[in-house]
Amino acid sequence: MVDLPVSGKVRIVEVGPRDGLQNEPSFVPTATKVELIRRLMKAGVIAIEAAAFVSPKWVPQMADGAQVLREIERREGVVLSALVPNLKGFDAALEARCDEVAVFAAASESFSQKNINCSVDESIDRFEPVVERARQEGVRVRGYVSCVLGCPFEGEIDPLQVARVTSRLYQMGCYEISLGDTIGTGTPAKTRRLIEACSKDVPLSALAGHFHDTWGMAIANVYAALQSGMASFDSSVSGIGGCPYSPGATGNVATEDVVYLCDELGLHTGIDLAALAEAGEFISTALGRVTSSRVARAMAARRARTMSNNV
Amino acid sequence: MVDLPVSGKVRIVEVGPRDGLQNEPSFVPTATKVELIRRLMKAGVIAIEAAAFVSPKWVPQMADGAQVLREIERREGVVLSALVPNLKGFDAALEARCDEVAVFAAASESFSQKNINCSVDESIDRFEPVVERARQEGVRVRGYVSCVLGCPFEGEIDPLQVARVTSRLYQMGCYEISLGDTIGTGTPAKTRRLIEACSKDVPLSALAGHFHDTWGMAIANVYAALQSGMASFDSSVSGIGGCPYSPGATGNVATEDVVYLCDELGLHTGIDLAALAEAGEFISTALGRVTSSRVARAMAARRARTMSNNV
Repeated sequence: MVDLPVSGKVRIVEVGPRDGLQNEPSFVPTATKVELIRRLMKAGVIAIEAAAFVSPKWVPQMADGAQVLREIERREGVVLSALVPNLKGFDAALEARCDEVAVFAAASESFSQKNINCSVDESIDRFEPVVERARQEGVRVRGYVSCVLGCPFEGEIDPLQVARVTSRLYQMGCYEISLGDTIGTGTPAKTRRLIEACSKDVPLSALAGHFHDTWGMAIANVYAALQSGMASFDSSVSGIGGCPYSPGATGNVATEDVVYLCDELGLHTGIDLAALAEAGEFISTALGRVTSSRVARAMAARRARTMSNNV
Repeated sequence: MVDLPVSGKVRIVEVGPRDGLQNEPSFVPTATKVELIRRLMKAGVIAIEAAAFVSPKWVPQMADGAQVLREIERREGVVLSALVPNLKGFDAALEARCDEVAVFAAASESFSQKNINCSVDESIDRFEPVVERARQEGVRVRGYVSCVLGCPFEGEIDPLQVARVTSRLYQMGCYEISLGDTIGTGTPAKTRRLIEACSKDVPLSALAGHFHDTWGMAIANVYAALQSGMASFDSSVSGIGGCPYSPGATGNVATEDVVYLCDELGLHTGIDLAALAEAGEFISTALGRVTSSRVARAMAARRARTMSNNV
């Protein structure tokens, strides 16, 4: 009845250092970004979106991407990726020794127009030379599709439309397509219908889930996706970040919560939850805020009780 | 593959006015309690735990139970219930025209000892005369079992132990047994195993789920339980409340979040989400706090955007 990934393994793509931090109103020092990534690697995270090579005019928070990548002490087996909007960004990412790059499109025409000023198809066309160059250079490309379970401007999005965009990115050469519930209105049943639609033309093993917890459904959606056999998920340590173009749509699902769920389902992520929670505590403290991860909060409360019992 | 309740209906038992408010450190005025229940009824909630007839020495917050029940303008079809620890409590509940009463036991021996100073079996024995009297009076009795997915003192709890307690309460005459994840450590797979174990001796239609969101798993657990065919859930408007004897274990799942999930899954609760969210806003404001319901927060954010767009 429940078809969790047959491999027993789940891949976590940590997006906190990029998707998370890029929405921070004040500049996060390079040293803090580097230290966060160091701690994530130490916790066993092997796929980290570390930077974006976009115009610093639009995303000033990501202006130090090259420096971040230069300063990180690399670890065998850890893939550091960066978002690139065009060839210029791709070249900068390569120059900074990025292991992988990511391109992005929307499943919603209105969102695409308001976000990047062009149609969905035009946005994908623009990425063709990037993917071609990446192929020449032997660099893997990941694709993001936003608004897969709802759009702030259009409301409901047809799963077939998402499947079409996903398929185009896959055909173009993206090894994995991350399906993003940008506004967090997705629910388990919709998640399963979406995966069913997208996996008709693209192998399930090339699909990832990117859920936002705005409506409190993210963990239930991850569970539903696992039941559909999906085995790759984006998440953000401590739940940092959201989408700057989708007002109010804060709330990447917290990596701690996804890892806890996987641990409890007997699915292997390779991540040490305690060490991960420490990385989350580090960045929460640096940003001066309370973690959005309920697992991290519950762990901290348990620790506080144990300490007071030992006094 | 997904076996949601075949009836297409889900029963929500609103426990906010009792389980929620009883942990409030300062006394909530009777008029506020009455107004909360009035708003819940207006939103279409038809099962509300409204009071507890326990010693005011132990639970001062519930001291005005009789007055609350007297002052509520009753609605056809709405069942108001109260927690009763013994015959004295039962008589007081009946006197106050309670429609239904609830008795309680734990699945964990240590929790039972620390919470009510007796063994699990002794606690159930003590309820026998209450259930017997209720039968004579034609009053339905609901049973609660706590610590069904973990105990703050014992850790893991054997599903067979929960099944045993559940079965005893059912045999004794409880029409429904609510399975409480008191410390909120339960996860979807454990939830399904638990329901499987308990439904061997008790019909699935006589089981309810009572999830806490302490570890962020409550909505995923409700979804998993729905997939097991469970169709009755306790929840607390605005997510108020927790367990006073389980340190740090705050966080009843919010009714708004459960209703949103059901709405989106096409399951009928009979509750109007917008009116429910208003009841939640009323009690959050009265308690001077931010709602724990992420659905309520997302709805408020959406409303704020719509209003600013209309200016």
